[in-house]
Amino acid sequence: MPRCEWRNFGHDLNLKNACYQIVRWKSGSAAVPQTDELAAEEPLEIQVDTRPVCVTMRTPGHDEELACGFLISEGIIQKRRDLARIQPYPRNQQGNVVNVFLSPGLSVNFAQLTRHVFASSSCGLCGKATIEAVHAHFKPVTAKLSMSAKVLLGLPDRMRKSQETFARTGGLHAAAIFTARGKLVVLREDVGRHNAVDKVLGYGFLQGLWPLDRHILVVSGRASFEIVQKALSARIPVVAAVSAPSSLATEFAIESGQTLVGFLRGEGMNVYSVPERIRFES
Amino acid sequence: MPRCEWRNFGHDLNLKNACYQIVRWKSGSAAVPQTDELAAEEPLEIQVDTRPVCVTMRTPGHDEELACGFLISEGIIQKRRDLARIQPYPRNQQGNVVNVFLSPGLSVNFAQLTRHVFASSSCGLCGKATIEAVHAHFKPVTAKLSMSAKVLLGLPDRMRKSQETFARTGGLHAAAIFTARGKLVVLREDVGRHNAVDKVLGYGFLQGLWPLDRHILVVSGRASFEIVQKALSARIPVVAAVSAPSSLATEFAIESGQTLVGFLRGEGMNVYSVPERIRFES
Repeated sequence: MPRCEWRNFGHDLNLKNACYQIVRWKSGSAAVPQTDELAAEEPLEIQVDTRPVCVTMRTPGHDEELACGFLISEGIIQKRRDLARIQPYPRNQQGNVVNVFLSPGLSVNFAQLTRHVFASSSCGLCGKATIEAVHAHFKPVTAKLSMSAKVLLGLPDRMRKSQETFARTGGLHAAAIFTARGKLVVLREDVGRHNAVDKVLGYGFLQGLWPLDRHILVVSGRASFEIVQKALSARIPVVAAVSAPSSLATEFAIESGQTLVGFLRGEGMNVYSVPERIRFES
Repeated sequence: MPRCEWRNFGHDLNLKNACYQIVRWKSGSAAVPQTDELAAEEPLEIQVDTRPVCVTMRTPGHDEELACGFLISEGIIQKRRDLARIQPYPRNQQGNVVNVFLSPGLSVNFAQLTRHVFASSSCGLCGKATIEAVHAHFKPVTAKLSMSAKVLLGLPDRMRKSQETFARTGGLHAAAIFTARGKLVVLREDVGRHNAVDKVLGYGFLQGLWPLDRHILVVSGRASFEIVQKALSARIPVVAAVSAPSSLATEFAIESGQTLVGFLRGEGMNVYSVPERIRFES
């Protein structure tokens, strides 16, 4: 087990993951503090001939391969000799910028590149800078909502019962908004997890339930940075995922004052941030 | 069960999913033709004041909510009165373009929008046009590779054994390249499924194993359009997923001459396209 640090922003990139102080609760027991290891998520900016073309949220490691595979699937490079060299950008000490140099004479249609492009500044490109950039636009939440752990535990089952399409196809992500008492407000399914979340936020907005600062967002799979950021844009104070959160999702939730729950399944859950909003009845 | 059609491009959008003719195989039995219902995946273009700002691959339905939630989480709209109206774009008969009109006077920083933007033509925006746009750049595959169903069945287990990080965090997608005989070439893990695929493609490219037209791509989760498209860019003839493929992934694989395998788990699998590459020993 690697050394663990609370709010471990500056985790060593040779260590693929970071450890976090969490609260673990099992039905019938008291909540206990524990450490948990999370999959690392950090931004990577890919530059082609020093021009930034993409920022993707990835797990650090094998970044040259990632840059290369991205450019292949975008049709920018096709054979080995299209590529001159790949090297880290020297001024980003976090190792989150990679520079791809193409063979002289290879013409690139930059307009056709399709991946997420976040506004970024290469010198500060890291999880911390990403969080600060979001907070320039969306302030942290302060809602004093209180929620029973027992009620929370029942929500994934209630979601699955409403997931018609998943039952037939096994192929959809789901997102749902619940009240703090566990009443289902809306559930949407989509092939894209971010789309399912956008749909439930859009429902709340269009129905006049705005902001959603008394509500809970539950997602069927994992919690990435993007999911928690979307919840913040709707002022949602509690986000719960059936599977694991990433490191950046957790760091973002901590900095945003949001309660982040993961592994909400079976008889228990992990709480990664602001556990004060959950009432753990033993 | 809705009416089923083989290569059902023009599926009714009121029917959320489409049915496909597949081959189902269980170890110890003969392969049998069946129909299977797949989660629908189609592009949606979101326009703001008639300006295209994003194309996302989504499950049709609740598109106004999706457009609205997207603009909220991008910080474009914040309160109900920022929004004048949302309506379908009249010239796209597939219903894959939605127009959002903002309140007069609301200023938008279009440069800050971050989501996938594919080059698109609004009149032809649909799954079929998306496939044609990819094929303008990447030709279908014709590799005559042959692979044992039994060997294929063993690959997910071999992946899990190599997935160090998943074992510790439960939080990562994996992608792997295998030879047709089932030899593991490379496995990569990432918080983003598309990144894990980019990394294994990049590995093959940088190691001089190019093109990957004698290889298999296996992914730990579901198979979306994007995954199968990336495999085509590397000339990979067989793509296998542990979970379900989407409708557009299947349509794309059919049109690209790729063998697409889904639900590769336990003792069996579904083959969604070009089953001729798989030897089903009963």
